[in-house]
Order: sequence, then C-alpha cells, then structure tokens
Amino acid sequence: MSRAYILGIDVGGTSIKMALFTRKGEMVKKWSIPTDNQEEGNYIVPQVKQSVVMKLEEKGLSLDNLSGTGIGVPGFLDNENERVESAVNIGWRDYPLVSILSQSLGTPVLMDNDANLAAAGEFWKGAGKGAQDVMCFTIGTGVGGGVIIDGKIVHGVGGMAGEVGHITVDPFGGKKCNCGKKGCLETISSATGMVNEALEGLMQRSNSLLHQKKGNELIAKDIFEAAAKEDELAKEVIDRSMFYLGLVIANACTLLNPKKIVIGGGVSSAGDALLDPLRSHFSRFALKKVKDDTEFVVAELGNDAGVTGAAWLALHS
Amino acid sequence: MSRAYILGIDVGGTSIKMALFTRKGEMVKKWSIPTDNQEEGNYIVPQVKQSVVMKLEEKGLSLDNLSGTGIGVPGFLDNENERVESAVNIGWRDYPLVSILSQSLGTPVLMDNDANLAAAGEFWKGAGKGAQDVMCFTIGTGVGGGVIIDGKIVHGVGGMAGEVGHITVDPFGGKKCNCGKKGCLETISSATGMVNEALEGLMQRSNSLLHQKKGNELIAKDIFEAAAKEDELAKEVIDRSMFYLGLVIANACTLLNPKKIVIGGGVSSAGDALLDPLRSHFSRFALKKVKDDTEFVVAELGNDAGVTGAAWLALHS
Repeated sequence: MSRAYILGIDVGGTSIKMALFTRKGEMVKKWSIPTDNQEEGNYIVPQVKQSVVMKLEEKGLSLDNLSGTGIGVPGFLDNENERVESAVNIGWRDYPLVSILSQSLGTPVLMDNDANLAAAGEFWKGAGKGAQDVMCFTIGTGVGGGVIIDGKIVHGVGGMAGEVGHITVDPFGGKKCNCGKKGCLETISSATGMVNEALEGLMQRSNSLLHQKKGNELIAKDIFEAAAKEDELAKEVIDRSMFYLGLVIANACTLLNPKKIVIGGGVSSAGDALLDPLRSHFSRFALKKVKDDTEFVVAELGNDAGVTGAAWLALHS
Repeated sequence: MSRAYILGIDVGGTSIKMALFTRKGEMVKKWSIPTDNQEEGNYIVPQVKQSVVMKLEEKGLSLDNLSGTGIGVPGFLDNENERVESAVNIGWRDYPLVSILSQSLGTPVLMDNDANLAAAGEFWKGAGKGAQDVMCFTIGTGVGGGVIIDGKIVHGVGGMAGEVGHITVDPFGGKKCNCGKKGCLETISSATGMVNEALEGLMQRSNSLLHQKKGNELIAKDIFEAAAKEDELAKEVIDRSMFYLGLVIANACTLLNPKKIVIGGGVSSAGDALLDPLRSHFSRFALKKVKDDTEFVVAELGNDAGVTGAAWLALHS
C-alpha cells in the first residue's frame, strides 16, 4: 500500500491535536486527545501512536500508509540534536522526541516549535497564502510569533527567532514581564495585558461599562464589546495596545519588508475593531514604500494552524 | 583562456570602486574611478568598461577572463526587472543597468543595493565570517544596514529590507528625519544625529570641551575624543546614541536571533568606546538566551566591503 499520507501533530498544554493530510496538503481527518503530562510526559508518545493507529484503521489504513510526521512543541528545542530542551507544560526535559516518535510511528519525524508551525500553517494554507515573506503575530495570553522569509521558517542561531512578545516597547520602564524584562510588548498588547490595563483604568473611571464585569472575570472580549458601545476606557485600552503593536510591526517591516502580516490568536476574532487602529498606528511608523507593500490579514485556520504547519514541515523539509 | 576572475563593482556618489577576485574569493587588484553623474549617469558604464579593460591588460588579461560581475548601487532597485528604479546621486532613473553592463563587459551581471552588498562582504570575508545569520549596522551620515539569514541577503517583497535607520525609536515625537517620519533611529544614532545632539547640548553646557569645536565643524570623532577626556556632554551624547541603537538591535535580535552583529561605518572606528555602551544597553533589552547567542563585532573590510560583497553576489547567485 502506498505511503500517501502525512501526519501533523500539535502538542499543547491541555490537548494534543492531530490531523491526517494527503501529500497534496488536503486535510482528510482531524482529532485530538488530552495531554497527559504525568511522568515527565513519557506517556504521550504511546498515547499518540495508539490514537493514530485507531484513526487510520477507521479509514482502512495503517501506519504503513504514512510517509512522514511533523510535530509542533511549545518549548525550547535543540533542533540540531532533535531533542526537546524543555517544554514546561508537557513535562519534557532534554527529551529525544524525534527519535522516540520516529521509532514509534515508523516514519521520519520533523519537529519545530508550535508558534513557528502555526505561522507555517497560515503561510501554506491560510491567510498568508501566496506570499513568500510573512510575519505572524498571535495575540492571546501572550504575544507569540513566527517569521517566514523566502518561504522558510526563520529560527536564528539558538532557535529563539520570532519571540515578538518580548520586543521592548517601553525602554524607560513599563510593567514587569514573565520573561524577567520590563516593558515587553506582551505586557500591553496581549489579551492579558489589555485586561490589566483596563483594570488599572477602572480605578480612575467610575463611569466605564467595564465596571459591570469587575466582580466577574474581565476578558479581552468584554473590552472590545464595551468599545463597540463607545466606552472611553475600553477604546483607550485598545488604542494603546494597537499603538504599540503597530509600532513593533512597523519596525519589523522596516527591517524585513514582508508582504503579509497575519494577526492570529483569540483576540484576532475582533476583526476590524482590532485591524483598523492597528493599521492606522502602523502607518505612522512605517516608511511609505514599506507601508504600501504590507498587507494585514486575520489568521484563517484557527486551531488547525498548528497541525497544518506540522504537515507542511514534514512535506517541505 | 579560462574565465578565472570575478569583477566586483561598488558604485558610490563620489567614486566607483572596483576589484578583481579569483573564483576562490581572493582579491587580486582594486582601484577606483570618480563618479561621473553627468547626462543621467550614462557615461558610467563606458568609463567602467574602459578602466576594467585597462586594469585587466596590466595583468595580461582581458574581458574574456571574467566569468561574472556583481555591482552594488546606492538606490532603489527593481530586481525582478534588473533595472535601477532611482539612484539619485548617480543620475540613474529607471535604468536597465544589468543588461547594459552585461552587454558592455560580456559577462553575466548581478546587482544589489550597496548596503546589502557591504553586509554580504563582511559576512563572506570580514567580521561576519563563520555565521549564517548576520545583521550589519553601518553608522555614518545615516544608519544603514543589511540582514543576512541562512547565508542569504534578505530583500523583502519590495527590496526595502534592512532600512534600519528608519526604525522608529521615539514614537511620541523626536526629530524630523529625511525620510519624512519623526523619531527614526538615524536622527539620534548616526554621526549626524550625534553631532546634532551635541550642538543642542552645548547651549546648556558652558563647560564642555566641545565648545572648542563649535566655531569649526564639529564631527562625531570630536565627541568620542572629548568623551575619552571625561567630558560629560560628550559622554551623554554617546550614551544616548548607543541606548537607542542597543534597543533597536536587541529588538531585531528578539525577532531574528542572529549570531553576529557587525557594526560598520565611520563611527565604528571608535571601537570599544562605542561597543561597550552599545553592548550594555543591548543587554538590558534582550532576552537572556538571545543575549548569550549574540556576538558584537566591528566591521573589518572598510571600503572594500562593497566590492567584496559584489563579488560574492556574482559567485553565489
């Protein structure tokens, strides 16, 4: 039987997403299993194998029909030695994932970090399609990213490329970031950052609609909803967040002049309420020709971006 | 006779530098001619040809011994159509340089902008040697740059990549830049920017050593000399300039995680007086792992960087 299929795996802290693709890149089946991070993540590969075999059987297929596997991991990778240096939420530490998974599935395995593969997924099949130079910014709990130049993921010498959330936007101070620095982009422009800014603002604004949410948990979606009702505080928080994101993207475009900027993550569902102020601030900080070259698009693949990028990796490396 | 040589050409506003290389990359002869920008730069190619033929003859060679030519141009290029869009100081405007030069010399011709080729020269034979990911910052009248990833020059979709002087460092104001924006890096961290900052500072500092130069023309070198004598104003100007350059480089490294940062241009002759404060500010703004990965080096090739990069282009494209 021919090895006509590719497996894409996207390892996350709560679930492991998987999908089967044809070699032409068509997704034929997707599913997920919960992440079992007991015993330093040692159960994960056997569980993945079991679920893959089961899903293949449902289609009358077996592991012999797989020609390659790509896997995205949330953590620091030692690509040269094909090991996971550390993936805190998964439990892997100095873990030879590539050889273990390859032995288990009987296919070549290629590995990259999850943010890079989400970017690659959008580049291949989603909002970044048609461009060779794409930068992705994922606005969620943090701000993540991936850089694709000339159709290839940029890793940098230590695999740290694309850590856009830790670009310094307030060099004179700013809030403390989880990374240990201060004034990082994600302290302001992530969903968490926006909520923090709103909570601070509420102390001075007795009339904001966001007070209704104060007792419950305020989330970024509430801020966009309040802004749609012309709430001043909400509008200011979004504007400030997009001011700094626009600055970072303009500066990154001055450096790399990509064709497309893909905005993903939970907050990107706000659509034009996010893109309009973002484009407007971006325009102030970008050279005219760079501005004219750059197209802003919202990510299209949602939760499928990671598995799609993993399949792309297996097919194109 | 064998086509054993490569020609590198670096077109500048005052002179055109040329050099002959072996195919192994050894420079065997270099020379320059003045830039004749009359008649929209139409005399340049014939003058280049004449001087190349003459220099080849001196070595008992002819154009038949050239296997390729690379040329660096200070301006905007339409690489796809192999034309110079505009090179203001040279006179070329929508000029089909590649075909004209190729016909004149009888070799294939490859073209790129001068800053990119200076970066490529340092990458190939200079301070960037041994790294695959290199960013160059040239501190002179302006701040120029070039980005090399995975051993290739990054151009971006419109050829604008590497315009690092126009990265915005003061998003709330700053001085007006030649590009039309405000608060660009080169308004503060170029030689010109440093001199401007010093001249402004002199109004408040009656005791600065730089007053001695006020009547004459103050240049960046004077500022470094005064700083070496512990002049407070001079030290502040250098520190502020390196603060913003350090910020920009740290943020660029967070995005791309290169191995080497090459600092070139006239101001780089200041050596450690420039690198020490630069590294110190960089360190505050960089993620720890990125900081550990990044090596700062001063450009080594000086005026030969452009012709060397041009030869690299001819050999490696």
